[in-house]
Amino acid sequence: MVLVSVVGLGKAGLPLAAVIADSGLKVVGVDVDEKRCEMINRGVNPIPEEMGLDELIKKHGGKNLIATSRYTDAKHCNLFIVIVPLFIDAAHNPDFSIMESTFRSIGKVLKRGDVVVLETTVPPLTTENLVRNWLEEESGLKLGEFYLAYSPERIMTGYSISRLREFPKIIGGVDKESGEIAYKLYKKFIPNLHLVPDARTAEFIKIIEGCYRDVNVALANELFKIAEEISVDFYEARNYANHEYCHIHLPSTGVGGHCIPVYPWFLIKEMECRGKYGNARLLRTAREINDEMVYYWAEKIVLECMKIEKPLADIKICVTGLTFREGVKELYHSRGLALVKYLSEKGLNAGAYDEMLSDEELKELGVLPMKPDEADIVFDSFELNVGLTD
Amino acid sequence: MVLVSVVGLGKAGLPLAAVIADSGLKVVGVDVDEKRCEMINRGVNPIPEEMGLDELIKKHGGKNLIATSRYTDAKHCNLFIVIVPLFIDAAHNPDFSIMESTFRSIGKVLKRGDVVVLETTVPPLTTENLVRNWLEEESGLKLGEFYLAYSPERIMTGYSISRLREFPKIIGGVDKESGEIAYKLYKKFIPNLHLVPDARTAEFIKIIEGCYRDVNVALANELFKIAEEISVDFYEARNYANHEYCHIHLPSTGVGGHCIPVYPWFLIKEMECRGKYGNARLLRTAREINDEMVYYWAEKIVLECMKIEKPLADIKICVTGLTFREGVKELYHSRGLALVKYLSEKGLNAGAYDEMLSDEELKELGVLPMKPDEADIVFDSFELNVGLTD
Repeated sequence: MVLVSVVGLGKAGLPLAAVIADSGLKVVGVDVDEKRCEMINRGVNPIPEEMGLDELIKKHGGKNLIATSRYTDAKHCNLFIVIVPLFIDAAHNPDFSIMESTFRSIGKVLKRGDVVVLETTVPPLTTENLVRNWLEEESGLKLGEFYLAYSPERIMTGYSISRLREFPKIIGGVDKESGEIAYKLYKKFIPNLHLVPDARTAEFIKIIEGCYRDVNVALANELFKIAEEISVDFYEARNYANHEYCHIHLPSTGVGGHCIPVYPWFLIKEMECRGKYGNARLLRTAREINDEMVYYWAEKIVLECMKIEKPLADIKICVTGLTFREGVKELYHSRGLALVKYLSEKGLNAGAYDEMLSDEELKELGVLPMKPDEADIVFDSFELNVGLTD
Repeated sequence: MVLVSVVGLGKAGLPLAAVIADSGLKVVGVDVDEKRCEMINRGVNPIPEEMGLDELIKKHGGKNLIATSRYTDAKHCNLFIVIVPLFIDAAHNPDFSIMESTFRSIGKVLKRGDVVVLETTVPPLTTENLVRNWLEEESGLKLGEFYLAYSPERIMTGYSISRLREFPKIIGGVDKESGEIAYKLYKKFIPNLHLVPDARTAEFIKIIEGCYRDVNVALANELFKIAEEISVDFYEARNYANHEYCHIHLPSTGVGGHCIPVYPWFLIKEMECRGKYGNARLLRTAREINDEMVYYWAEKIVLECMKIEKPLADIKICVTGLTFREGVKELYHSRGLALVKYLSEKGLNAGAYDEMLSDEELKELGVLPMKPDEADIVFDSFELNVGLTD
C-alpha cells in the first residue's frame, strides 16, 4: 500500500498532492504554514487561480489529502515527494537552507524501503550529492536501504492540474534501482511519465529548458535594440523571419519570476566552481542582457520625457504591470519593479500601478502608488512570464 | 513586356534564372565565367546536385535563358536581379568589391523605368545607401526614374527550385513605389511572395534568421560542454527537453559555410561602426563560441590519443567531412578544415579525408591526405550545414 507524503504545499506542491489524492492514494501533505494546512483540511483551496483545484481540494481535503505541519504525521508514508522553494542569493549562489532542513526532517522519519523524490528545480548533482548525504546522515540508512530520485515539476501556475495529467514528465534515480522503483510509483498518478538515465540528467533537462528560453529572450532583446538603432520595426521583421525552423522570441523588459532568470545561474555557478568560466559565457551574457533591459527602457522613457514641456523632475512616470501574468501575484525578480525603483533612485517622479497590488503593498515595496490616468507617461512592463510555455 | 536579367549565375542565381525562364519570361543571365555561360547555352546544367535544374536548363538554356558575360547583352532588360557573392575579410568586415563593380556595370546600361532587385544577403542599409549610390552615379538617373528593391534569396543548395516555388519569399523597396513595382514583377514567377515595409526590413529579416541559428548552435555547443563536464549525455537530455516550446539545437564542430557564420558579423560590425558595442554582445559571444569549438575538439582528440600506446607525434589522426553536406562541395569557413590545420600546426600527425576532395585538392588546401582506415583516430567533423532549414 503506497502512502504518499508531499512536502511543500505551495503553487507546485499542492496541485500535485491533489492530483495524487484524486488518483485514489492517501496523501499526507506537509507545510510549515499551519493556516494553509487548516484551510486545506476544511476543503478550502488556498490557490484559487489554479484551475480545477477548488474541486479537488473540496473533494479530498481532510480526507484523502491530510495537511499537517508535523513531519511525524508522515512517518507511516513510504513515498516522500519534496517541492520546497530554492532561492538564489545576491551573488546568484543557490541557498539550500530550506531544502536542507526539509530533507533532514524527512531523514528523521525515513524507514528502510522508503522512496524519496525531489521535484524542486535544482543545480545539477544536488540530488545525488547533497540530498543523499542529508538523508543518510539523519536516517542512519544507506542508499539502497532507501531509494532516491529526481522528477522536476513542469507546471505552470493556473494550468498545473492539466499539466500533471497531460504534459510529459521525467524521472531519474540516483542509482538504477531508485529510478525504476520511483518510476513505478509515479506511474500510478502521472500518466505521461518517462524514465531518464539518472537524476543528474533529469536535473539538467529541467535547467536547459529554462536556459533555452533565457538565451532566446536575450537574443530577441538584442535584435530589438539593433532594429531600433537602424529604424526597422522589429515585430514586423520577426513575423516574416519566423517559420518552421526559426523561433525568434519577443523582446521584453527582461525576464522575471522564480524560474527562467534563476536556472541559468545553476549552470554558470557550477562551471565557475570548476574553474570552467568559459563554458557558460553565452548563458552569462544572456542573463546580463536580460537584466540590463531595465536601463535600456529607463533611457527610452527619459527620451520620451523630452517631448513634454515640463521640468524632467515634474513629469509623472507610471510603470504598470509589476506582477507577471493576469491573476498571478508574483513579484520575484520583477523587472517592472526594478524599473520603477531605478527611475525613482535617479530622482525621477516615478510610481507604479498594478491591479493585483494595493497602495499599501506598493508602499511596502518602496514604490510610490500612481494611477495611470494621472501620469504624463505610462510604461507597461512586458516581461517574459513565469511559465515555460507562455 | 518584361525582359529579365539575372546577374550572377551561381548556386543561387542560376536556379532563379531557370525558374523565371520556366515561367515564360525571357531571361538574360550575366556571369563572368564564360565557360559556365557556354554550358548553359548548350543546355547543360553546371550544378548537377541541384534537383530539377537539369531539366530546366535543358529546356530553356540558349532559348528563354541566354547566358552571357557581357552586360551590354542585357541592355534591353527592364528587370535586373543581382545575386553575386559578398565575402567578409579577415577582420569580418564585408568586402563589397564584387558587388560594387556589378552594380556599376548595371548602372551603365540602366534606363528610365528599369527595376533593380538585389538578392544577395547584405548588411542592413546596403541597398538604400550603397547600391542606390552606385546606380545613380553610373546611370545619371535618380531614384524615382528607376526603381530599387531588396529580396533575399532563401534557397538551400540541392532544393532551390522547390524553395523558389513554395517557400515564402519577401521583397521590400527602398521607397514605396519601388516596393510595389518590384512586388508586381516578382509575383509573375514567385508564387509565395510578401511585400514588407522597406528594403532595410527585408535585409534585416534575412540576417536575423541566420543569427537565430548561430546563437542557438552556440547555445547547444555551450550546453554540450557543460553536460560533458558533469557527465550527462547531452543528446539524451536534449531529447526530453525539446518540445513544442523548446528547440535546443545540435552541438557541432562549429558553423561553416557562406551564410550563418557570416551574417551575425553584418550586425556586429554595423553596431561597432555606431559605437554601440553592447548592442551585439550575444551575437559576438555566439560567434566566438562556435568558432572556438575547433579548439575544444582538438583537446578532446588529444585526450583520446592518450589511450593509444604510441608517442603522440606518431598517432595518425584523420579528420573526415571537410565539405558540408552530402553532394555539396563547399569549403568556406569549413570547421573540419580549420580543425585539421590546427592539429597539424601543433605538430600532430593529422590528415583529412573527404569523398568530395581528391588528394591533390587536399594538398592544395595545405592538408595531408589520409585514409580513415590507416588512421589511429578518426574524427568525423559534424558542422551545422549551409542551409537555414537543415
